[in-house]
Amino acid sequence: MTVPRIGVTPGDPGGIGPEIVVKTLSRPSVLPPAAYVLFADPRIVVAEEERLGLRLAAREWRSDGPREAGVYIAPVPAPGWAAVHGRASAENGEASFRFFETAVAGARNGRLEAVVTAPISKAAWTLAGRPWRGHTDYLAQFYPGAIMSFWSERLKVALFSHHRPLREAIDAVRQDALAGFLMMLHRALGKIPGGPFTLLVAGLNPHAGEDGSLGREEEEEIRPAIDAARKDGVPVTGPFPPDTVFLRALGKKDAVVVALTHDQGLIAFKLDAFATGVNATLGLPFVRTSPDHGTAFDIAGRGVADPRSMEEALRLAAAFSASGS
Amino acid sequence: MTVPRIGVTPGDPGGIGPEIVVKTLSRPSVLPPAAYVLFADPRIVVAEEERLGLRLAAREWRSDGPREAGVYIAPVPAPGWAAVHGRASAENGEASFRFFETAVAGARNGRLEAVVTAPISKAAWTLAGRPWRGHTDYLAQFYPGAIMSFWSERLKVALFSHHRPLREAIDAVRQDALAGFLMMLHRALGKIPGGPFTLLVAGLNPHAGEDGSLGREEEEEIRPAIDAARKDGVPVTGPFPPDTVFLRALGKKDAVVVALTHDQGLIAFKLDAFATGVNATLGLPFVRTSPDHGTAFDIAGRGVADPRSMEEALRLAAAFSASGS
Repeated sequence: MTVPRIGVTPGDPGGIGPEIVVKTLSRPSVLPPAAYVLFADPRIVVAEEERLGLRLAAREWRSDGPREAGVYIAPVPAPGWAAVHGRASAENGEASFRFFETAVAGARNGRLEAVVTAPISKAAWTLAGRPWRGHTDYLAQFYPGAIMSFWSERLKVALFSHHRPLREAIDAVRQDALAGFLMMLHRALGKIPGGPFTLLVAGLNPHAGEDGSLGREEEEEIRPAIDAARKDGVPVTGPFPPDTVFLRALGKKDAVVVALTHDQGLIAFKLDAFATGVNATLGLPFVRTSPDHGTAFDIAGRGVADPRSMEEALRLAAAFSASGS
Repeated sequence: MTVPRIGVTPGDPGGIGPEIVVKTLSRPSVLPPAAYVLFADPRIVVAEEERLGLRLAAREWRSDGPREAGVYIAPVPAPGWAAVHGRASAENGEASFRFFETAVAGARNGRLEAVVTAPISKAAWTLAGRPWRGHTDYLAQFYPGAIMSFWSERLKVALFSHHRPLREAIDAVRQDALAGFLMMLHRALGKIPGGPFTLLVAGLNPHAGEDGSLGREEEEEIRPAIDAARKDGVPVTGPFPPDTVFLRALGKKDAVVVALTHDQGLIAFKLDAFATGVNATLGLPFVRTSPDHGTAFDIAGRGVADPRSMEEALRLAAAFSASGS
């Protein structure tokens, strides 16, 4: 069996990213067999190993070498880097951008099956003159159909819209766009093991509009979009009241909730899966996952960060890669 | 010590209301000491007792009698009533309306400290020609400042808006209205034991607008409203990102989240407190609580309904009444 090649980026060196990466990759025996390739400046890795008293048994990565399970390092220099924890800095922003950019280039060129990203700081990217809002935003320039989704043991959620004002998110709920989204999501999920998946679409209004008395979007846009997607073979139901659709999906292996707004989906997901949730970008030619938390500047450098979400992100990347998605 | 007088209504006779009421009131020893007064047609109570094989040790209620802990019945005839389960009917709608109306009249006249309501069917009220959307809507005609709130062991949520289309709910987020709401909520909470309570206000947009880049309402309306309320002595903070404010409040005894929309609050509350949550109407001259679920027509008449939410509603009513709110 050929193991998948999974790129790993440590995120912002001033946050908890390097810590959770070293904590997880220092115990490869508890992870699925894969070639885990850390894209980072070796100085950052060594500094983190020393702080934590852990060691990565890492070999240097050669993309044309034999594909063997283990931990590798692909050195990416971060010229201006100096150990600064707990706040956004231009140097850390530039470093985290380069690590990610290099890993993505590898995946785009077919030398990695997956990329797993520890959290970056958007503020640090801005200070470094890197204009993207985050990892997904950077990827969207190459893959405009990229879909943000969230996975945990009990709940799977895909976001129809994410980083836009709520008023605009409502305006974006249009029949054609939603039907297209449902079809793209269904196609992307088809490459993932554990399927086939059924989509449960949340309504937009309280009680999903209650037959139009609490809002018209369900009748005018959402229901027609669901009907159109279903006609094209997508297993999809709804719209369901936003406050019960997550309970309906909870614990069902094959159910994916389609949240129409950022906070519908993330209020539910973060409450249910705090510390173990994984963010997965669907609709790319490679797998991309990340832990569902931020840089946590407030606890960076203290050695107390919880690596479970990172560990789950690596597991999910390996599982998704295994099926050749 | 004088025990509180707590009116109890069985809700729609075709739903699970009578069942959960008989299940809880047949074990008054596990409830706080109070005079629990059931407003119902005795035929409905007897039919439910026989079905469940349980007995209420109920005396007839006399509002001018001595105030003693125990279970009482205040007979309210439901002329057209016949045992129909599992669907909305005009007869059941009219019956449930009369039980509630009579209990509320008692509370408004000062003969009850609290009213605890099992779920009604809005569809049945409509069939019966009773135009209100539910209990809270009926109460709002007397008390326009009534506030819908939700209480569980770990989470407390108050809704700034509830049964309106999401687009209108956004339009309603205005500085003056929100500041007024925060002050009313603070005043209402002042009568409740366990305080003083701190209010945590959710934002409206993803990441609470992220300094205006994802929406302007936080800067233009919400923050000024919070500042105004704080100046008037209300302990209030925010706006917080909607997807993390509930985690922030979870388990904190003195924290009440102010949700700006129905589903912000109820997605979180139902996920955290399904089966044990309580709905409490604040800002009335008496206490009103109810279980946080509906008539459950699909399981009505089978004896399998979970009475925990009703039991918690009775407990909370007793606790709130004790402090003379």
